[in-house]
Amino acid sequence: MPRYTELVSRLPATVPFVGPEAQERARARPFKARIGANENVFGPSPLAVEAMARAAAETWRYGDPENHDLKHALAASHGIDAENVAVGEGIDGLLGYLVRMLVEPGDKVVTSLGAYPTFNFHVAGYGGLLLTVPYRDDREDVFALVEKAAESEAKIAYLANPDNPMGTVHPPESIKRAIRAVPEGCLLVLDEAYMDCAPAEFRLPLDVSDASVVRMRTFSKVYGMAGARVGYAIGHSELIRSFDKIRNHFGMSRISQAGALAALGDKAHLAETVGKIEAARTRIGEIAAANGLAAVPSAANFVAVDCGRDGDFAKRVLDGLIERDVFVRMPFVPPQNRCIRVSAGTESDLSLFERALPEALREAG
Amino acid sequence: MPRYTELVSRLPATVPFVGPEAQERARARPFKARIGANENVFGPSPLAVEAMARAAAETWRYGDPENHDLKHALAASHGIDAENVAVGEGIDGLLGYLVRMLVEPGDKVVTSLGAYPTFNFHVAGYGGLLLTVPYRDDREDVFALVEKAAESEAKIAYLANPDNPMGTVHPPESIKRAIRAVPEGCLLVLDEAYMDCAPAEFRLPLDVSDASVVRMRTFSKVYGMAGARVGYAIGHSELIRSFDKIRNHFGMSRISQAGALAALGDKAHLAETVGKIEAARTRIGEIAAANGLAAVPSAANFVAVDCGRDGDFAKRVLDGLIERDVFVRMPFVPPQNRCIRVSAGTESDLSLFERALPEALREAG
Repeated sequence: MPRYTELVSRLPATVPFVGPEAQERARARPFKARIGANENVFGPSPLAVEAMARAAAETWRYGDPENHDLKHALAASHGIDAENVAVGEGIDGLLGYLVRMLVEPGDKVVTSLGAYPTFNFHVAGYGGLLLTVPYRDDREDVFALVEKAAESEAKIAYLANPDNPMGTVHPPESIKRAIRAVPEGCLLVLDEAYMDCAPAEFRLPLDVSDASVVRMRTFSKVYGMAGARVGYAIGHSELIRSFDKIRNHFGMSRISQAGALAALGDKAHLAETVGKIEAARTRIGEIAAANGLAAVPSAANFVAVDCGRDGDFAKRVLDGLIERDVFVRMPFVPPQNRCIRVSAGTESDLSLFERALPEALREAG
Repeated sequence: MPRYTELVSRLPATVPFVGPEAQERARARPFKARIGANENVFGPSPLAVEAMARAAAETWRYGDPENHDLKHALAASHGIDAENVAVGEGIDGLLGYLVRMLVEPGDKVVTSLGAYPTFNFHVAGYGGLLLTVPYRDDREDVFALVEKAAESEAKIAYLANPDNPMGTVHPPESIKRAIRAVPEGCLLVLDEAYMDCAPAEFRLPLDVSDASVVRMRTFSKVYGMAGARVGYAIGHSELIRSFDKIRNHFGMSRISQAGALAALGDKAHLAETVGKIEAARTRIGEIAAANGLAAVPSAANFVAVDCGRDGDFAKRVLDGLIERDVFVRMPFVPPQNRCIRVSAGTESDLSLFERALPEALREAG
């Protein structure tokens, strides 16, 4: 038998998330509303679809390993230099690289209890020791995070803003204060996957001269291209350069590169999508209210609906929805797991949710 | 500043290969023949192109993290179980995972001197100690490889069959003997990226009960989908399961999954492509001969053309070709670097090569 590393021998064969397809196979029935993975049902820009279809015939060529055109377009769109942008296989891929760059077995990493499981998967995968800070009022507790990072001498502190799974957001002033408080030798990973649909006043200006923070963005959410696997990191040039030491240089799909580039150019589609997401958030809130439930105010493309009781109850509600062919997910840990998490859907998706929710609540009660 | 791991601090920011796009940017002029990266200029199956174009509009959905449909189709096509197949982001991605699973800093790994640089990149990236065995008569020296693995107690021995960059191939009997000789605790990575275009008699039957070997296949070469990033590993179920401990579960492009599945179903296109590759190999050999050069007999989708002198001379020939807008590459180390490596091209590509070669040779002389 091959001799695995000690670390890998100890790791479980696990998945951060079970995909909806796996659930459909297990149920032997497709979902009718796919509003559980915070995908953007409104879809990519038609320009991106066109660019990808065109690129399909050209897919005998490797993608450009430097991601030159996309990287430069991203840099221009953010008003920074290309040396401050690293493109990778989704934020998931970039988080993996980042953890690998910084974490050796036993190194400490701080996150919120119940935050993004894929980040935790990577930390475990490199032998890091994950320390967690509880949410406070359904928001990540940024100051407690930074404090925990200081007292534990953590190498990374992870903060999603807007947060997933709760959808809450911190204003720039709080994030700025947190960044100033990041301890020496700690990198703040600011996961802004959902920032494109947050109200404009929540957008923190970029400061790529600050080596203590890296910001993660993606085409998977508001750009509607989760399946294309394109994320990017914005940060200090030295950190960005370090990705080149270890990344899968030929890892990007050529079709995805073309699609992301085209999507980036279609600002009108992005604005339209943000409008649809806002409307869907409102609609989810109304459906919740009609059932006597509260929706957690969200700046993301999903809404955490507070089912008003404990995690077991919410799980029963979730199961009832799934049984009615409505794919949703829920937070993993208390007290957030009193909620179910519903992604912005089309009118048809949300009508199904509207019909299924009261029945699921009744059954769960 | 962030605290990088000791290993990453020491690593250079490097690329295993400079892409042709980077060369085109540097030259400020596109290539007219792209026959340097062993891409398949004959392109993917029209069914795959169609499937990818269709999937483009659906790319708001994440790909299935289990790669269920593709994995099962691959298993069926090879007559094995799905538990013996791992799908990943090209062989490059899978090699990275594999090295991560097995190699800790200081662990030994054996390969041939001048073999696939991306594998070496991964070994360095995890701190492995790379030991090399010279080629013998332009072929990887399989028995010396296995012997070196035994005497060094290496964790991995890497062997590409057909080989890259020389295109030579070993018959199944030699590979079988080598597999039997793989020392206890060593994994033989048999990279068969080019096997789909090797003559049928070179195909070694699969034995997935053997935990000492893993075989790598890809859609990047004969299937003409390098830009889609789809590779797969065939091996013992325990090894295959281990990928799930560390892989980027949502790393596969949904479009690529759809494309690979469709490509796999188009056996006629594959056969046609193999015919075109064979014809192109012959044509490259004829062009070489017309210039008084010998072509190394190749079972891959490229031919190493022996320029008859040393590496400096071959490099000048290569430069002359590049200057004439013909993108080719060459082996990195002596004595293989007396050759240039020419990928199977269209008639138009090879006509350009035919015209450029005598001029490049004259200038180099």
